[in-house]
Amino acid sequence: MENFRVIPTDEHNALVEAAYLKRGYTADEARAAGRMAAAATWHGNRTHNAIKALHLDRLFGSGQGGCVPGAEIEKIPTRFPAVEVWDAHKKLGQATALLAIERAIELADEFGTGTIAVDNAFHYLWGGGYVIEAARRGYIAYTCCTAALTEVVPPGGKFPTLGTNPHSWGLPTSEALGYPLVIDWATSVVAMGRVQQLAREGGALPPNAAVDVDGQPTTDPAKAVSLLPFGAHKGYGLSLINELYAAFIGGSTPTLRCRAPVAGEKQTPAFYFQVIHPESLSARRFAAGRTQRENVQAVLADLFGHGNEACTLPGQIEARAAARSEKNGGLLFSEAEIAALNEIAAEAGQRPWEIGKLKTAE
Amino acid sequence: MENFRVIPTDEHNALVEAAYLKRGYTADEARAAGRMAAAATWHGNRTHNAIKALHLDRLFGSGQGGCVPGAEIEKIPTRFPAVEVWDAHKKLGQATALLAIERAIELADEFGTGTIAVDNAFHYLWGGGYVIEAARRGYIAYTCCTAALTEVVPPGGKFPTLGTNPHSWGLPTSEALGYPLVIDWATSVVAMGRVQQLAREGGALPPNAAVDVDGQPTTDPAKAVSLLPFGAHKGYGLSLINELYAAFIGGSTPTLRCRAPVAGEKQTPAFYFQVIHPESLSARRFAAGRTQRENVQAVLADLFGHGNEACTLPGQIEARAAARSEKNGGLLFSEAEIAALNEIAAEAGQRPWEIGKLKTAE
Repeated sequence: MENFRVIPTDEHNALVEAAYLKRGYTADEARAAGRMAAAATWHGNRTHNAIKALHLDRLFGSGQGGCVPGAEIEKIPTRFPAVEVWDAHKKLGQATALLAIERAIELADEFGTGTIAVDNAFHYLWGGGYVIEAARRGYIAYTCCTAALTEVVPPGGKFPTLGTNPHSWGLPTSEALGYPLVIDWATSVVAMGRVQQLAREGGALPPNAAVDVDGQPTTDPAKAVSLLPFGAHKGYGLSLINELYAAFIGGSTPTLRCRAPVAGEKQTPAFYFQVIHPESLSARRFAAGRTQRENVQAVLADLFGHGNEACTLPGQIEARAAARSEKNGGLLFSEAEIAALNEIAAEAGQRPWEIGKLKTAE
Repeated sequence: MENFRVIPTDEHNALVEAAYLKRGYTADEARAAGRMAAAATWHGNRTHNAIKALHLDRLFGSGQGGCVPGAEIEKIPTRFPAVEVWDAHKKLGQATALLAIERAIELADEFGTGTIAVDNAFHYLWGGGYVIEAARRGYIAYTCCTAALTEVVPPGGKFPTLGTNPHSWGLPTSEALGYPLVIDWATSVVAMGRVQQLAREGGALPPNAAVDVDGQPTTDPAKAVSLLPFGAHKGYGLSLINELYAAFIGGSTPTLRCRAPVAGEKQTPAFYFQVIHPESLSARRFAAGRTQRENVQAVLADLFGHGNEACTLPGQIEARAAARSEKNGGLLFSEAEIAALNEIAAEAGQRPWEIGKLKTAE
């Protein structure tokens, strides 16, 4: 097991906030970035933590004009009361998404469901973080977005015109299970980072995860140039949903997204959020006089009884990581990750952590 | 290529209606059953046609008390204006689902999104049919339901506690593509019928499609006792969504569903429908002055350009089948299927078709 050190959440957030402030973001934006980076690491997500967030900001964000510090969200007038459409004007993705999930909850409280569509967005990092937030507060939540770059080939094609296009669902099962169910994944079999890692380390890709330059499936990471969706036509369909939702909202052609600027074009991702108030779904006629909560608990007990007790539930890995963070009283980072955080500290003019002085995680 | 004969849609629907009337259904219910059976066959769906519908009705429906001819849908009072919850009182699934998608469209016209949750439902057959209907009329539509029987094992488990749990999305792309995108599949790799067919014919299952009695994956159809979700944890998560939505609506424990009656229990499936008015998602700020429709078209042209012209789009197979039905002026059935329809005709006291006199399909 990899060796982790514990960074207190406050210290972590102070660093992330300082780094975002240094790049010109507002205090609110910096706080949102710190909060979502901490949420990712707290739940064991090592691909969408502070290091990735600040790296993405450098590659596509405030460093490249893809994200505009201090941008104000504009609500587009609408005749539809349960759906809002926002022009984020390239505001920081985490700040936009936190506001969106909050507003979707308010709409769900009033209408049963609340939907927020966001045009001219910038990468929100970890979709799971937003739906966990809503699910923990008792709501059913869903989000999808278009990924920054098109890296995925539609089955039968040659050219990557699809993003890795994630989907995230959160279900309010905390009372029944102790944690929310979180169904959260990209529609590619693997991430491009995994292909590069295997190319360096000499491993093989799983079958039907990537294609070579001719669009032929390959398990050789050195020959892989683009990814494939998971589950053949099923994951492919799910990936198209992100692209089409974005097309209805306001995203332009996928292959231009987050690439070098093209005059007269839009190159921004789009977000889609939906929250459902679970009471709005209830027929209030549960078997054996159960309440809705008791019914959800009974269904889960049935699903994971009968010899299925060893199954891992989606959200359980995140819940176990959160329990470990809780137990250690802070965020768990590998030593290599702390070195990367210290580079961020140097950029932001903050004191680096002395790795040897940080508590080793249990 | 299998030999198909053409049955005029009117004649087909008259037979299906007669069969449902004979089993005690109302004229409205019989019409809904005929219409949805025709829609399935028209779109090339051979697993959820009239033969399957009437067979299911025999196994679980009016023959077994799972479906109640003439049942009246009851709308449960709610404080949430964009969501309705119906107690279907075991009304015929196709009739219930057609009313639900219609009402969801009306709610979407008013609120931006419209959601209908249905408790005490009976199998609606082909989810794709309802979302195609909405998408053809310009709406984004989604439905999921709990499958009749639990045949799928959660990964790592032994006992089938999940249904094949389908998801269906329809996207209004008719103006852009000539047909709606339809993303419509079960969350199991294969259907149990396919396992049985391979067991008879001696073929092998794909890997990770089924498990043996100990919960170990097997490709031997003779050893396969339960199915697995597609795409490992990804399809598994999608399958849980159907079970949890049903649990919030009113469905009881999955393993009891549609089995021998248990006193004091509920054993009915649940439906979930959601329609989105695409205008409600539009920020109206499309690149290059495009309209929303033109933007969707530009995105699709980008996705399926660049050497991806040979890709099959989800919905394209259904659209090709519909074009073939159109060209032949009716519904295409194999001779074995017509023999099965003739058995239904005998039961309903209708004249059988003389297969040799039916037009052979082009």
